[in-house]
Amino acid sequence: MEIKDINIQYVLQKRPIGIPESDTWLRKELPIPEIKEGEILVKNHYISLDPAMRGWINENKSYIEPVAIGDVMRAGTIGKVVSSKHDRFKVGDCVTGWGGVQNYSITTGENWHLVNEALAPMQMFLGALGMTGMTAYFGLLQVGKPKSGDIVLVSGAAGAVGSMVGQIAKIKGCEVIGIAGSQQKCDDLINNFGFDKAINYKSESFIRDFKKALPNGIDVFFDNVGGEILDLALTKIRRNARIVICGAISQYNATTRKGPNNYMSLLVNRATMQGMIVFDYAEQYPKAAEEIYTWIQMGKIKSSDTIIEGIDNFYEAFLRLFSGEKQGKLLLKVI
Amino acid sequence: MEIKDINIQYVLQKRPIGIPESDTWLRKELPIPEIKEGEILVKNHYISLDPAMRGWINENKSYIEPVAIGDVMRAGTIGKVVSSKHDRFKVGDCVTGWGGVQNYSITTGENWHLVNEALAPMQMFLGALGMTGMTAYFGLLQVGKPKSGDIVLVSGAAGAVGSMVGQIAKIKGCEVIGIAGSQQKCDDLINNFGFDKAINYKSESFIRDFKKALPNGIDVFFDNVGGEILDLALTKIRRNARIVICGAISQYNATTRKGPNNYMSLLVNRATMQGMIVFDYAEQYPKAAEEIYTWIQMGKIKSSDTIIEGIDNFYEAFLRLFSGEKQGKLLLKVI
Repeated sequence: MEIKDINIQYVLQKRPIGIPESDTWLRKELPIPEIKEGEILVKNHYISLDPAMRGWINENKSYIEPVAIGDVMRAGTIGKVVSSKHDRFKVGDCVTGWGGVQNYSITTGENWHLVNEALAPMQMFLGALGMTGMTAYFGLLQVGKPKSGDIVLVSGAAGAVGSMVGQIAKIKGCEVIGIAGSQQKCDDLINNFGFDKAINYKSESFIRDFKKALPNGIDVFFDNVGGEILDLALTKIRRNARIVICGAISQYNATTRKGPNNYMSLLVNRATMQGMIVFDYAEQYPKAAEEIYTWIQMGKIKSSDTIIEGIDNFYEAFLRLFSGEKQGKLLLKVI
Repeated sequence: MEIKDINIQYVLQKRPIGIPESDTWLRKELPIPEIKEGEILVKNHYISLDPAMRGWINENKSYIEPVAIGDVMRAGTIGKVVSSKHDRFKVGDCVTGWGGVQNYSITTGENWHLVNEALAPMQMFLGALGMTGMTAYFGLLQVGKPKSGDIVLVSGAAGAVGSMVGQIAKIKGCEVIGIAGSQQKCDDLINNFGFDKAINYKSESFIRDFKKALPNGIDVFFDNVGGEILDLALTKIRRNARIVICGAISQYNATTRKGPNNYMSLLVNRATMQGMIVFDYAEQYPKAAEEIYTWIQMGKIKSSDTIIEGIDNFYEAFLRLFSGEKQGKLLLKVI
């Protein structure tokens, strides 16, 4: 097998304070090494860009080891095996795993999965059928525990996870209200994703709109955003409400963090605020993916992507996670 | 039946901002009215003073209607029936209920309970066998869900609820660490209540002591205090930890509230923060009281009281809830 290509990698050069700058990562060009016995070489087609990546480049360990200085930036990827000395994978196989921000990944296959390309467009295995879908599915169903008729509020609703959460909540018979960052995104939530209501948090009338959209309070709040929106939601929770802490995108680049001042609403309303990490549900992924796939086939779940082409647009694309200039799942297309 | 006495009442005169002032309540002297058919007249012996009372005099409704301006201050009481036109209660019965801050209460008996005085000193039915004990019991066991070997941290540990929580956690086989506001209280937690460790939050070395006392983190945090201590505890929670939000005494008199800035630790540690209100467990009180009573008989639960004599010391006594100048359950002795 012959590869004339070089490998472009983005490695962590220094830990950012606040919003990452262009020198947070260093671009490297390297020859593509030969694989050893038990390894495969994967040509990455898509790289998943996720808000959680911001957390992985902080110094302190959280639920996962931080990316070390000098290491390739961690990212979920999907691509094709171009060279194999591995029993389980053969050349041409479509595989997904933690390939990182680079054109080529070498791996022993641990935590990598074969993907059936015939089922859906390849990138969907990073989105609705991948970590994004799993996060929405387990966060909503196992932590949020919605019952039919519940009022479900989703922040970051136009994002990859948020739009899935809303759609799954609709499948479960809930009334679904989304919060997003533009009127166009709000329209899309209602017209494309079937949300009952959508609120634009960048509107001047946001607080008023928020109250108006939730006259009967909230049973489940799926929070991707944190900050002021979490605090506001706490003023509206109902008895025994469940708040799913999935993320806090408003806080990831903040140098000082802001907690929910209204947290005593949890006491008044006997409510629960619970954090979740999708990795804990890994054993149940296949079953969940199957169910989501069925929903997609039935037209009950739609997914949308924003695809940025070219690995060298990594930094610019990454910033869109926080500026909101994207719709649904953000992906970097390598090839 | 003849009562020559007058009734002294403390009624809410104005809603305080911050710490209540002496004119928050108005002292009234009233004749004792005749009871009507279906009512009883109770001479109150003890009035329970609890941090939650501070919340009841705020304007906004929380889990219970606020005390109205002009109404007798709400409080749990225990006393004796001195006059009865009621089937269920006879003169001489010992009864507990929401008698309020006054010498005499008239009631139809709804939500009042007969107490067997032979079992324990009367005031214990406001403490270990009353709302205090119920709060500790249900908050720890049903929300905190401690398992044998768990590390349980209790704030406000020298208080009425906190000291019970620690003792019940010991019965359940946990390692128990308490936070209290003086060295003497800390000594008492260890020597009298069987806590494994105690930390004085007023000490200059508090943060250091805190970290040293919790080298392996926290499985259950029973929080009566809120504020900085909650934030600090969040930095130490372990995977799947449970935080019981029972109160936030550090915040009750605060004019602006401070949320837990480290709440994202809930996500990292897949932890849960849940509010509880003891009233929700009312149906299970008798069974819990029986179990607590057994523990008391076995010497496994001790309770301590601070008893202030004289209803006219109500205001001064109330402030001790927040200054910490008390030990265990704070009671006002009327007679």
